[in-house]
Amino acid sequence: MSSRKDLDYYFYPESLAVIGASTNPYKAGYQIVKNMLDYGFAGKVYPVNPKETEVLGLPCYPTLNDIPGNLDLIVIAVPSPNVKSVMKEAALRGGIKAAIVVAAGFAETKVPELVEQEKEIVAIAHQAGIRVFGPNCVGIQNTRNNLDTTIEPPVVKTQGDISVITQSGAMGGITLLFMEEQPTPLGFAKWAHVGNMSDVDILEILEYYGEDQDTQVVGMYMEGIRDGQRFLDIASKVTKEKPVIILKVGRSEIGSRAAASHTGALAGSDKIYDAAFAKCGVTRVDHIEELVDVAKGFSMQPLPYGNRVCILTEAGGPGIVAVDQLGFAKNAQLACISAEGREKLEACLPSMASICHPDGYIDITAAAMSEHHVDALKIVLDEPEVDSVILITVPPTFLPPVELAQSLLPTLRAAKKPVFVCFLAGKWCDEANTLLEVNGIPTFKMPGQAVRVVDKMIERKKYLDKISQREGSAANA
Amino acid sequence: MSSRKDLDYYFYPESLAVIGASTNPYKAGYQIVKNMLDYGFAGKVYPVNPKETEVLGLPCYPTLNDIPGNLDLIVIAVPSPNVKSVMKEAALRGGIKAAIVVAAGFAETKVPELVEQEKEIVAIAHQAGIRVFGPNCVGIQNTRNNLDTTIEPPVVKTQGDISVITQSGAMGGITLLFMEEQPTPLGFAKWAHVGNMSDVDILEILEYYGEDQDTQVVGMYMEGIRDGQRFLDIASKVTKEKPVIILKVGRSEIGSRAAASHTGALAGSDKIYDAAFAKCGVTRVDHIEELVDVAKGFSMQPLPYGNRVCILTEAGGPGIVAVDQLGFAKNAQLACISAEGREKLEACLPSMASICHPDGYIDITAAAMSEHHVDALKIVLDEPEVDSVILITVPPTFLPPVELAQSLLPTLRAAKKPVFVCFLAGKWCDEANTLLEVNGIPTFKMPGQAVRVVDKMIERKKYLDKISQREGSAANA
Repeated sequence: MSSRKDLDYYFYPESLAVIGASTNPYKAGYQIVKNMLDYGFAGKVYPVNPKETEVLGLPCYPTLNDIPGNLDLIVIAVPSPNVKSVMKEAALRGGIKAAIVVAAGFAETKVPELVEQEKEIVAIAHQAGIRVFGPNCVGIQNTRNNLDTTIEPPVVKTQGDISVITQSGAMGGITLLFMEEQPTPLGFAKWAHVGNMSDVDILEILEYYGEDQDTQVVGMYMEGIRDGQRFLDIASKVTKEKPVIILKVGRSEIGSRAAASHTGALAGSDKIYDAAFAKCGVTRVDHIEELVDVAKGFSMQPLPYGNRVCILTEAGGPGIVAVDQLGFAKNAQLACISAEGREKLEACLPSMASICHPDGYIDITAAAMSEHHVDALKIVLDEPEVDSVILITVPPTFLPPVELAQSLLPTLRAAKKPVFVCFLAGKWCDEANTLLEVNGIPTFKMPGQAVRVVDKMIERKKYLDKISQREGSAANA
Repeated sequence: MSSRKDLDYYFYPESLAVIGASTNPYKAGYQIVKNMLDYGFAGKVYPVNPKETEVLGLPCYPTLNDIPGNLDLIVIAVPSPNVKSVMKEAALRGGIKAAIVVAAGFAETKVPELVEQEKEIVAIAHQAGIRVFGPNCVGIQNTRNNLDTTIEPPVVKTQGDISVITQSGAMGGITLLFMEEQPTPLGFAKWAHVGNMSDVDILEILEYYGEDQDTQVVGMYMEGIRDGQRFLDIASKVTKEKPVIILKVGRSEIGSRAAASHTGALAGSDKIYDAAFAKCGVTRVDHIEELVDVAKGFSMQPLPYGNRVCILTEAGGPGIVAVDQLGFAKNAQLACISAEGREKLEACLPSMASICHPDGYIDITAAAMSEHHVDALKIVLDEPEVDSVILITVPPTFLPPVELAQSLLPTLRAAKKPVFVCFLAGKWCDEANTLLEVNGIPTFKMPGQAVRVVDKMIERKKYLDKISQREGSAANA
């Protein structure tokens, strides 16, 4: 047990208590116990409340002291004025490793007494060897042991390799909802809302996710950090191993003032964040939807070798939209198709196809059947100066989307280069998009999203190349 | 009949023929007849094909000449090499007012013979008094007489007051799909895909929509126009009466080259378009999703009186996202709440609510119940320096979204100022969002969308104010 890290007691508790557990469905202490039971948490759950004898079928304990044996984690779901006495009780009981404080009404209010109270609670905890998560936080989820300490409305929890850190419970919840609403639910590994960060902060969790075998991609909603150097150190270490995607708000001056009023974090100048993110290889995104798209790209596809993107479309308008967006990309540019490749495309595509106007852009037109899609995809994937492909189609009535997807799948699955797919006809394509994603091929609602994703993946590839060159020359020196 | 405009024969034909009608489901000539029948077109439909005697239960005519009586519109769905002879036949028959040419393979190919052929077809048509739509186009839809000449996959057609003009069939189709996928389907009046614009062009349709009583909002996907002055004249006239929202692609240099290869339209420098749109009061958007959001805003809400937006949120993170976006808005800015208003808010909201940090931003917090939402909304709507409200909530488990929506509805419906609502908890809020939209209150998936919509509505208000001032001073001069 001595090898367990502090955060293991949060994400893998063998037993936990919910203080303030309740039979009243309108109270957090009811909802937390219910979420744990509904989700089927693997460890022991002890409701604690002197006024109840049973909560949702579990025996309820009057105090923490009455709970027998080990107790790794306590979830404190009592009103803010009562948190301090609960923490004292926890310290006296002993053996507790970790606490989550749900209630708001502490340092974030900027009221001096409440700021002070938060400090006192942490001091009491630390003297007893208890780490503190929160206050003002909804807690933790882990899909590997069915842990959910939150009061979030029920969402389907799909296992996956993306882990989330958030400074806003709502934004963290919305992230999971957007992930869930993809054609195939995009699963997650761990999820944590940090609240006021009186003790455990986003950086400690970031470092933990960096070492977590279940996590391959990290997504973060950030309002602000306090220690820039520590951020640079930890983020640089993690991004070497896995992508770290951050939505940092407070970009505009007025937005940064609103962020400061929320969790009390120092928002700081946005340009400083931009520079810091670039320096340590963080992938910065502008919206939650983009965070989810980019996480999907990283999770499902290999990094492209270089920046040359081929846009292969069956529909002119959406193809132009894709090229137009690519023209504003920071890293991606249109690929080059060889003379030989053009000849092959001409030989197999409908006569009205528009091949390489401009170079790297191929409109196979609405006359294209399944075999035209497949042949063209094979040809461009074989091109030496194509590093990735965005494949766009708006299947007409005579080309059922699922049939088209099935025809494309063998080529898509065998591809060594990343391919991003847009089947763009709403519900008419739902089944096809699901089929593609079940088979590991990411799909997007509009081509612009695919362009942003590939652009961010190229940015990461460039960063990793730079790092490995630097390390290579250091080793040779 | 003499008072009918040329385009009336397209949108309100009393009779139409489909040349190339077919019993083969893989042919356009089958799909067009099927769409007309499935949708229940109010006029007469005549299939024409010498090789068929019946198509989908309708008697099929060998030639146009065999069709008795009036014939307003012909939809030419034969392969491109046969279009010219069909047009000759139509000219000889006489009495035909309008033609839609579906096939591609004309001027857009830039092959000199095919460019020439397109001109000849138009010349033949004009000599016989026939207008030409296309070629390379999927045609027209009108929800008022159940007309659908397209081969688009079947979509539910909801009647509404938004009309669409598109230079890409796919982008036009996707627009309808996004409209259909709103919490309450966003209906449309008319829809037209213009193709090569050999005769009827987007400007003639824009002018027609301007005078159309069923159209209150115009949405357009544009790749390029040829006659800048005519655009300015027509757009200025239409925007005085109704909003004209345009997604113009070819913003980047490479995107503009792709656009030129599509419909052969001159894309032109993007800055010129930007200036022209501003001059004639066009609302420019960047994405199809934004076009739909902005059309929804214009269609459902009155214009705000001024640029002062109050952001009222129950969740910190999404509230900050909204304020952050507002910081980058061109026209919108945060509202001012009076000292009296602040006192009223303090008196009725939970103690931890954050009121006016910064001014005009109110976080009622997750402790807020239905009555807190309603009271705060009433107070800010009554404020003299609030012109519009963005209301954000992530209903927790103990606050069922539909109940919250029902509590808010009387205030929302009575509001004289526009309110934009974000219920942000995925499927958990679907029913609430539908309820709000059925009652005419627009909802958005993320607060950033609401900010962009209100910003565009303020832009239009400013434009109209400027126009009326100019006209006022001209009248006084």
